[in-house]
Amino acid sequence: MSPVAINDPTEKRTQAPTKPWKPVQTSPLVERISNPIREIVANIDLSAPPEKGVEKPLINLGLGDPSVAGNFPPAPEAIAAIEASLKSGRALGYPESVGYPDAREAVANYFDEGPGGNWRISKQDVVMAHGASGALEMCISVLASEGKNVLFPKPLFTAYETMAATTGAEIRYYNLLPESNWEVDLAHLESQIDENTAFCILNNPSNPCGSNWSEAHLRDIAAVMNRHQVVVIADEVYAGLAWNVTGPPPASATQPAVEGKFNRRVFTPYASVCGSAPCLVVGAVSKRWLAPGWRLGWTIVHDPLGVMGAVRIALGKKAFVIQGPNSTMQRALPSILANTPESFYVNTMVELERVGKALFDRLARIPGLKPCLPQGAMYLICGYEGLDFEDDKAFVTALHKEERVFILPGAAFRLDGFMRFVTTTPLETLLDACDRLEAFCARHRKVVA
Amino acid sequence: MSPVAINDPTEKRTQAPTKPWKPVQTSPLVERISNPIREIVANIDLSAPPEKGVEKPLINLGLGDPSVAGNFPPAPEAIAAIEASLKSGRALGYPESVGYPDAREAVANYFDEGPGGNWRISKQDVVMAHGASGALEMCISVLASEGKNVLFPKPLFTAYETMAATTGAEIRYYNLLPESNWEVDLAHLESQIDENTAFCILNNPSNPCGSNWSEAHLRDIAAVMNRHQVVVIADEVYAGLAWNVTGPPPASATQPAVEGKFNRRVFTPYASVCGSAPCLVVGAVSKRWLAPGWRLGWTIVHDPLGVMGAVRIALGKKAFVIQGPNSTMQRALPSILANTPESFYVNTMVELERVGKALFDRLARIPGLKPCLPQGAMYLICGYEGLDFEDDKAFVTALHKEERVFILPGAAFRLDGFMRFVTTTPLETLLDACDRLEAFCARHRKVVA
Repeated sequence: MSPVAINDPTEKRTQAPTKPWKPVQTSPLVERISNPIREIVANIDLSAPPEKGVEKPLINLGLGDPSVAGNFPPAPEAIAAIEASLKSGRALGYPESVGYPDAREAVANYFDEGPGGNWRISKQDVVMAHGASGALEMCISVLASEGKNVLFPKPLFTAYETMAATTGAEIRYYNLLPESNWEVDLAHLESQIDENTAFCILNNPSNPCGSNWSEAHLRDIAAVMNRHQVVVIADEVYAGLAWNVTGPPPASATQPAVEGKFNRRVFTPYASVCGSAPCLVVGAVSKRWLAPGWRLGWTIVHDPLGVMGAVRIALGKKAFVIQGPNSTMQRALPSILANTPESFYVNTMVELERVGKALFDRLARIPGLKPCLPQGAMYLICGYEGLDFEDDKAFVTALHKEERVFILPGAAFRLDGFMRFVTTTPLETLLDACDRLEAFCARHRKVVA
Repeated sequence: MSPVAINDPTEKRTQAPTKPWKPVQTSPLVERISNPIREIVANIDLSAPPEKGVEKPLINLGLGDPSVAGNFPPAPEAIAAIEASLKSGRALGYPESVGYPDAREAVANYFDEGPGGNWRISKQDVVMAHGASGALEMCISVLASEGKNVLFPKPLFTAYETMAATTGAEIRYYNLLPESNWEVDLAHLESQIDENTAFCILNNPSNPCGSNWSEAHLRDIAAVMNRHQVVVIADEVYAGLAWNVTGPPPASATQPAVEGKFNRRVFTPYASVCGSAPCLVVGAVSKRWLAPGWRLGWTIVHDPLGVMGAVRIALGKKAFVIQGPNSTMQRALPSILANTPESFYVNTMVELERVGKALFDRLARIPGLKPCLPQGAMYLICGYEGLDFEDDKAFVTALHKEERVFILPGAAFRLDGFMRFVTTTPLETLLDACDRLEAFCARHRKVVA
């Protein structure tokens, strides 16, 4: 949402000034916050009527929100749980600011790896938060500060930058490799670390890449983190939304998937491979349970060595500032996690895989486009070559103008030469967009001199 | 909630260290956050069993949450609105980060003062937030920064301090005067202002004072703010929860109260007296609608002079960081504001006034206690004298130990020699507590030498 959506300050609507007030100053740290998506697409007005000759309906593929089209509804069991919470009269007041004990316990039970796991999660390791964004904001502001640096993937969900902006920390990027299914460039990652590195964010499955790392690759990353004692924030908001993996399947692939939990045949939680090293795991009901508007997220403290004492205290302080997430949703969480049937998760993944594959196949037939096959999350990322655009912002601006299709450019994720499709969009809409893209790309082939 | 509620870091529960990790460092700014209430009552364990000879049930009067006892339920119309929102399928995704347009419009319509008002509020002046705390945190972090100072009342809701801690701004206090119904000491307020003052928070009706300022007094405050061009953050989360006023009633008292809105015979919104001066008005459904757990709040930008352009942009940026409040609640807000019957507000106030008066009368008959008659909010503040305690922390600690009654000491609000009662507690519970207090005070009369 644009910051300019609230009143235009230059528009004086009522009485004349009584005396000349100076413009009110704001915090320099808040001024530092940027919103790359908004800035990049500033010259695209989605609410504008079509230009003459382009009277097609707008296809907006920009928003990573599974609820937009109505084809990915949340489970009826989840709706029923919230209704029961609402009517219980027990979800009206302030929870403890770190969350209701039963909500924290439900998260601990769901994400615990069982007796063979590396770390038995208890409710005392869980801090409830206002969505995954609220959890990430807590983790980032607790660990980052002036004089420190923080490591973000490139490409990335740029809200990380927004959250880090007010801490004063330096942002450093480590590259993900398109040619290796968006695995981390480990040498580059290692070169970015120094003694002032406060943390490294890993995002798997990935927004915007639609990738899902193998257990072997995650172990390689963990080795780097452990060697340099870098704390990891594992953004696993797409945990369990994965159906394929590059490289060998996880070691646990020979075991049956745990019912109602993650399919460990394909998705490897970072905490299961990092050994004793400390990490903060961020999750939410937003994606796997398909309801980002419920703003129900959490942070799990993974700390077998007991080196996160100050972090636990600081997370508690941050939780105290704005209090925990909505209590009606929190009260419903144990029931949502316990009662959502396995078929709900399976159906979601089957459909995401089907749409992702069909979109990939269609895009691969368009000369100039280089799609990546989605393996997780709800995105397909697509490169291009041989087209006559200066950059991907020019590409998506022209595509909107000429074909009324809106796609986020790679630049919105700090990645040039790509664009991101949202695969929760109904397939027929995506195929309609592809038809327009094909005509568009044919018109914009670069003329070789 | 205590920060120590998550795992004890000294408790190592699983495998042995693979290598010695250093304790993970946290941000110095976050370390600066204090929680005075928790620190002050650190030696009171409310979950401990009673000591021998004191087997009375615990009476906990500490929490300012109207939902605790079940005697102040929210309106059925509000529950029905949320249920309809939940089942609509239209409240699952991300709202615009400043809020759904219809929620913002509903707030604008509810708080607009009508054609004769000083400033016509439009939806573009409203930013939805995660409760009043979320709104206050946004306002404070947008305006405060290193090198600036901020003005807070004393006594105060200490969450203001928590929110200011990470901005680096200096906190200055202006005194409220117990002998003048907790009006502002205007000379003291003025003496705290300098050219680096970022804002002044006004909290009316007041937590913890239970006071409600007159229109005349609010105009006097506004004159000081206007003279020095100090931006006001008006924390009016208790707006409309007022039944009495000291001094002459508001000028609008001759007009009928606007149905479904505030009773302007007693409550004066700051924005109605500050003229063209800029202010940010914070509100929420937490108190007047009796559901703090719904975490549904807002900030209204009052800016007739158009000097808040940077503030509007900064609020939009802050809103973008964690996205707006829960979408199910936001979607219900227009219906909650439109359909809650006038009788609901009236019944709440009648009961708060009745309980406050009865508690006042009872406390006034206990030698050594000096209660203040509540005029608004949901608190009664009570002084004491001639008792043998070093300070009010010692008072409440002994009261809990000897009588199993827990009351927050004035120190939790930066005010020595007082304690705060929550008047949403059922009256019979309060009178039971008073009986115990009477015996307690009789035992602790100071012996005059």
